[in-house]
Formats: sequence, structure tokens, C-alpha cells
Amino acid sequence: MTDLDALARRLRAELGPDQVITDRQELRTYECDGLAHYRVVPAIVALPHTAAQTAAVVKACVEARVPFVARGSGTGLSGGALPHADGVLIVTAQMRRILGVAPEDERAVVEPGVINLQVTRAATPHGYYYAPDPSSQQICSIGGNVAENSGGAHCLKYGFTTNHVTGLQFVAPDGNLVRIGGRAEDPPGYDLLGAFVGSEGTLGIATEVTVRLTRLPESVRTLLAAFPGVDQAGAATSAIIAAGVVPAAIEMMDALAIEAAEAAVACGYPAGAGAVLIVELDGPAAEVAAQFDQVTALCEQSGAFEIRIAADDAERALFWKGRKSAFAAVGRISPDYIVQDGVIPRTALPQVLRKIDDLAAENGVRVANVFHAGDGNLHPLVLFDDGVPGEAERAEATSGAIIDLCIEYGGSITGEHGVGADKAKYMPRMFGDDDLDTMQLLRCAFDPDGLANPGKIFPTPRLCGERPGRHRAADAFPDAEVF
Amino acid sequence: MTDLDALARRLRAELGPDQVITDRQELRTYECDGLAHYRVVPAIVALPHTAAQTAAVVKACVEARVPFVARGSGTGLSGGALPHADGVLIVTAQMRRILGVAPEDERAVVEPGVINLQVTRAATPHGYYYAPDPSSQQICSIGGNVAENSGGAHCLKYGFTTNHVTGLQFVAPDGNLVRIGGRAEDPPGYDLLGAFVGSEGTLGIATEVTVRLTRLPESVRTLLAAFPGVDQAGAATSAIIAAGVVPAAIEMMDALAIEAAEAAVACGYPAGAGAVLIVELDGPAAEVAAQFDQVTALCEQSGAFEIRIAADDAERALFWKGRKSAFAAVGRISPDYIVQDGVIPRTALPQVLRKIDDLAAENGVRVANVFHAGDGNLHPLVLFDDGVPGEAERAEATSGAIIDLCIEYGGSITGEHGVGADKAKYMPRMFGDDDLDTMQLLRCAFDPDGLANPGKIFPTPRLCGERPGRHRAADAFPDAEVF
Repeated sequence: MTDLDALARRLRAELGPDQVITDRQELRTYECDGLAHYRVVPAIVALPHTAAQTAAVVKACVEARVPFVARGSGTGLSGGALPHADGVLIVTAQMRRILGVAPEDERAVVEPGVINLQVTRAATPHGYYYAPDPSSQQICSIGGNVAENSGGAHCLKYGFTTNHVTGLQFVAPDGNLVRIGGRAEDPPGYDLLGAFVGSEGTLGIATEVTVRLTRLPESVRTLLAAFPGVDQAGAATSAIIAAGVVPAAIEMMDALAIEAAEAAVACGYPAGAGAVLIVELDGPAAEVAAQFDQVTALCEQSGAFEIRIAADDAERALFWKGRKSAFAAVGRISPDYIVQDGVIPRTALPQVLRKIDDLAAENGVRVANVFHAGDGNLHPLVLFDDGVPGEAERAEATSGAIIDLCIEYGGSITGEHGVGADKAKYMPRMFGDDDLDTMQLLRCAFDPDGLANPGKIFPTPRLCGERPGRHRAADAFPDAEVF
Repeated sequence: MTDLDALARRLRAELGPDQVITDRQELRTYECDGLAHYRVVPAIVALPHTAAQTAAVVKACVEARVPFVARGSGTGLSGGALPHADGVLIVTAQMRRILGVAPEDERAVVEPGVINLQVTRAATPHGYYYAPDPSSQQICSIGGNVAENSGGAHCLKYGFTTNHVTGLQFVAPDGNLVRIGGRAEDPPGYDLLGAFVGSEGTLGIATEVTVRLTRLPESVRTLLAAFPGVDQAGAATSAIIAAGVVPAAIEMMDALAIEAAEAAVACGYPAGAGAVLIVELDGPAAEVAAQFDQVTALCEQSGAFEIRIAADDAERALFWKGRKSAFAAVGRISPDYIVQDGVIPRTALPQVLRKIDDLAAENGVRVANVFHAGDGNLHPLVLFDDGVPGEAERAEATSGAIIDLCIEYGGSITGEHGVGADKAKYMPRMFGDDDLDTMQLLRCAFDPDGLANPGKIFPTPRLCGERPGRHRAADAFPDAEVF
């Protein structure tokens, strides 16, 4: 019996036989997350039903020195939940109870497998909702959102997952159950909550999440503005923010993205648009009404040739349908595509979009742009045909060069999809050795054996502590004792 | 020559002779911060002018194995900057340049010694301000605010310091200069920024702070509502929040606090009030006007017998003068007092205030209540006369019992003053061993020798790593290798 066989037997004994998968065919279901071009079949899949079972799985892994990877709904786009071939994939999807909704404290407590949209559904009868809204909100889980610090269209005004989690119970990489934060804001001691949210499974596995609920706005108004091109739409975005208006969302789509959306869902956007903006305002009715007029005027002044105002929820839904289907829709106009995710300062939008155009032309590929314009979070879709020799490579090169552009303009290699397996290689382009070493200090403190989601986030699998012939992680403290 | 003499000589050589203090009389200036009942004269005071000099001081301390404590303006109320008798006090007050104001990115970059209010002064010409506003904002420094995660009256709407810092350069406890965060939101990798802000000097010393600037509101309106007692004022607070209104501030003062403020600054609050609320709304004029009517109505419904609306900036300043002078003002009605700082869920305000009354009666002391009602952040002032035998002890007991009440009601041992030297003893009442051990993991990763502000935050000076006969910090990982 191999060590992994022994581990599987132990897990079956602790969890029950139907909560542990080792059949090769069944394991293949879990070989990738939303980033399907990385595929690894895990050795074992465990499906714990409780926090205690999750802790038991991690403890068993630690004792067997087997790596483990957590997975929620598997919708991540950076390969953060990519399994380890010799490891255990811990699927949190079975932990899907909403443990409590406390509108008087503006909090809900949920298990990690609860679907993002379910939190909003549970809160709505009380006049509240859960603000972070990834496009995948109908299927992605809160545990995955916590791991990746997920964003969404409305994060411009409301912030990311990290701004909406106030407490966590999690299984630390040694198998202990720990609580950090709580219902109240800013408890004393170190704020480990911020470090945990977005740590992509490398500091542990969340087993209970306390989230902030946001009051449903009194009023929501949405407009769709059509511009001759992205320059004018970018200028309108800057003008709106510069005027001190903070819309709930400002989303941009360029001509190619509009073409794809029309082909897929016939959203009926204005003909001849080189770019459209969807601007949504929410809040007290008096505020929204006053600011809506301001936004409309600024779009006109920036060159909008048509502005439509959603008359009702149905029209509002139609505006969003084109935007929300855009990623999938590019399948209508290209056999293959890469979704990139980068951030630039809002003020650099026109220059960067022009440079992306240049890059696409140089490499002979097309790039459709669909993005959160308000916070400079680009989602260029690099289109290619895998059947044409060399195109995939040119698309990959273009996608990588876009990340270089983001860094060059003072932005970031990821806005909301995370680093995962996909972007670990870019981390040294954004951070110096001292910066990465400082992050590594935290990782090593929590996971000295490097068993929690190894190979994610950090470019090289650096090891903690002094081991002969291996890299020492604690370079940041050259004079300190080995620890 | 002792080790400390040698260290002082080295610091003089590196910084310049006038930047190092060892004269006993001069050292006494630094023996306490704003919490004056703890006093320790440091062995050496260093006054670095730059980040590089700060790093040099820390490196020298590490090599000499001498503890170091950072101090900004020395206004802290929990003894976080209390010196170490055999250590170096590193005063950051000389680093007071504003390095840049970038309204287009809504950011300012400042040195740690810059005074809180100076950031707002630098931003105002551009239409912005710095939102966190401790009562000491005319003298407290940004570096101190970062260390203590300082709050203020307007944190109800705008959040604490941690919500307004997006990037830091700091000297790690090994003497290396490190950068975390930046101008943009949520960079990839671990969010160490959240852990650093509020770490009270135990993870390093900030040498450059990038802060978020907030747009000056179009409109500000302030009312003063007088109630028969704190029950009605508490009910009004709950009613305002429950209505979905988020005022910039909701401040409460009880009868004793009003009496003190009147004696000190003649603020002319309505006669016969058992409690007053100051409610301030800011934002777009349309929103403020609509919500102001709502707040006025809710105060009346909750039992306000007089509501005054500030007609101009002068009247608004008068409303605030009573509130802001309240701490100092109790000196008019009592020879001695303790300022307590605790948090309770807003909904528990009436019960807790009643229990504080009971406690005061049992212990034969008076308690004046002045606090941030909107976020449940109490500041009970326990009055006593040190000349009366036993009164100081009874006041201390009352103050401690109030913290027990806060914990019992699901709140926190500190809202905004920090743990420091004063409240380390309460940490085990709020956190379990596993929670504290988890925090200790981070501390040990950054500061394995325990030289950075030892004795603060954590109840017992636990040591990192395995040393014969000493306590092992890594209890959370009983099976892990010694690190």
C-alpha cells in the first residue's frame, strides 16, 4: 500500500466512504478550474461536510506530508484551485449552509460552499444584499471568493471581497481551527483577516465566513452611452470620476466586444458604436437623480452620440446582458481566446488601450476589450485560432505583453482573478526580492512545510528554513538565527 | 563602556551628534505618551531624519540586541509608545515632509512625522481631505495613526486609518526597508498592509505612508439634539442607522459630560438635557437635504425635546467644541479620571449604559460618557480623586469592569486607542490561546528576537523558537519542526 493509499483509507474512515474519491475517472472531473488550459488530476478528492472534517483532512495530510489544495465551485480564472498530482483536493462545496442572517448588525455568517448569489437572496427579504458580484456569482462560492479576493462590476463603489469579510473561521495549514476577526470592525491585535483574504489557499481553508451585508439602495439608475471610440469613452470615465461622482459601476466594451455580444445575445446596443459605457448609479433617490443628470451631461460633452436610459428593470437587465455575456460571447467570433486581467491607473486608459491596439496589430491577433473602466481593471480578450500554426503562441505573447504594459503604467498583474498557477511567473516583474521574501515570511510562519496549495502565487517553490543545498526563504533576515 | 554606551556612540556617528539623546534630564521628556500613568525613561532617544537613518538605527539595535520602540507625537492613549528602560526610543517626528499630493489618483504620500491635520491642509486646495480625524488631529502624526489604526468621530462613515492607507515603506524589525501596497488598490500577494496598520510598532516602523484622499463633501449639515436621557438618545441612534442613513458622525454625551463641557468651554447646550446627540451628515447636497429631514424626524420620534440645526460654520464649530473638549473638560469637575475605550454592538447601547451606571453606583465613583454612538465606541470617563484613599482602586476596578461588559456583549477591548502597554492584560479575555498563538506566528516571522516594541499588545513576553527553559511560541504547530 502506498502512502497515498493509506491516506485515502484514513480519510474514508474519518469522513465516510462516499466523501473520498480515488477513482481515476471521477477524479478527472476535478482536473481544472475555470482556467481550463492547466489540467492536473489530483491523487485524492475529499468532500468534507463540516469544519471539523476539513480540519481532520488537513491534519491527515500534514501527518502524511502530502500537499493539499482547496477548491470551491471551481470557477476561478487563474488556476488557483489547480490540483496537485500527488496531493489531496479538498472540495468545500458540501459546506453550504447559511448559518445566520443578522440585518441589525448588517452581517451574515455562511459556510464556504454557499454560492455568492445565495447570500444576497437570503438578505434581500431584510432589505440587504451582498455587494461583491463576480460575473460568476450564480455559481461561484464564498469560500472561493475569500481565497481569491474576488471583485465584480460593482466593486468600483463597494470594494472587493476583502472589504466585505469581517470574520473567519479557518483551518490553518497545521490542521488547527482558528478564528480571526468577528462581527465587529477592527478588533485589536494583528489584522490577519486582510492577509488571509486573497491568500489563494496558501494560508489555510476558510470554513465559516462572516460577511458584511449592504443596504439595498433606494434607487438604481442605469444608462448606456455609445461613443465613436474608446478614447471618448475613456475620457467620459475620467470626467465622471473627476467630478466626484462614484457610480456603482462604469463598464466599457469596445467594438469587437460589442460585435461578439450582439452575435450571442442580441442585446441591441446602438449601431455604429466604437465603444459603449454602461454607467449605473445607486443610492438615495435624491442623490441618484442629481448625479444622473451630471453623468449624462459629461457623457455628451465627452462625445457620446447616443445615450439610453433604462426605463425599467427589463431594459436595465438587457444593458447588463450584453456586458455579462461578453466573455462567453467571443466564442461566436473566434474559436479560441485568452481572458487577461490587469489593472492600470484610470488616467492611463486611453494610452494603454492604444498600445494594446498596436500590440494586437504587431502580433497579427485581435483583442476585444470588456472591462471595469471605473477602476482601470482591464479584461482584454485575445482572440486566436488554435488551428492556425503559431497563432496560439502569438496570442500568448500579446497577452503577456499586456501585463507588461500594466506594470509599466504603474498598475497590477491582476485585478480580481488572482495570481494562482497562471501568473506566479509575473510576480517578480511586479515585486522585488525583498517584497517577495517578506510575503514568504508570512507563508512560512503558517505553512513551514509548504503543503498548502504549493506552486501558487509565488514564482519558485522556495522552502522555509535552512535545508542543505536548498534555497533559504529567510533572506530578508540575513543576520537572524535560522528559524 | 557598556553596550548601550557603544550603541549610542555608533548612532551618533551614523546620524549626527544632535540626533541622539542620552542626557538623563532630556530623556525624561520622552518617558510617557498620552497615557501618563505609565512612565519609563528610555536609555537612548534617536531622532532620524530619513528612512535610511531609521533603518540604520534599527540595524544597530538588532546587532546590539537592544529593544527599540517607535514614537510619533506621543499622543497615544494606550502606552503604545511607552519606552523600554534598556532600549532605544526612535522618534519619527523629524520626518515631516509631505512628499506628494496626487488628487487625480486621490492619494498623498507623506513621511510618518507629518501631522494628521497637515495632510488635510495640503489636500484642501485640490478639493480633498484626509478622512480619519482623531480628536488629537492637530498634533498626532500619521506614523502614530498607522501604528494604532486610529479612528475619530467621522470613522462611522469613512472607516479607520486602515481603510485610508494604500501603501507603506517601513523598516522591518531586521533593519531592512520594505515596501508593501502602493497607490493602486489590492495588489496581488499577501495583503500585509492590513496586518501592519494597527500592529503598534511590533512589525516595524513606517517611514513613508501613501494615504487615500477623500473628496470634500458638497454639503455638510450638523444638528444637536437634546434628550431627557441616554436611553432616548440611544434609541435615536439605532433608529437612524436602521433607517439606512449613514451619518458622517453620531456623537453622544451624557449629563455629566455635558456639565463638564459647559464648565470648561461654555458651549451652551440645551439646559436640562440628560443626553445630547451631535449628528453630522455630509455628501451631495440633494442627499444631505433629504436625509437631514429624516434624521430630524427620527430624533423627535425618539424623544428629543430640542433640536438645533447649525446655521453656519461658527455654530457647527460650537456644537463640536463641547464634544471635542469633553475629555480635557472633566478636569473641571474631577481632580482625576481614567479614559476608557471599548466597543459594543450598537444595538446593546441602552443595556450597557445602564450597566455602567450600576457599576459606578456599586463602586461609588462617577462615570461620564462621551462617545461615538454610531459605531458603539464607548469612551467612559471614570472620575475619581486620588487624594481619597481607595478611590483610585475603585475607579480602576470600574474601568476594568466596563471592558468586561464590552466583551460580554460581543464587543471589543479597544475601539481606537489600541492595546499598547495598558490593555495587553485584557487580550486573553478576548482571544483564545490558538488565536493569540496565530498572531504570535506573524510577530515571530518578522521579529524573531522580540526587539520591536516588546511588552506591547501581547499579554506575556513569549519568545520565538525553541530555547531551553523558555516558553515556545509555536504552540499552534505542536507537530511542526522548530523554526
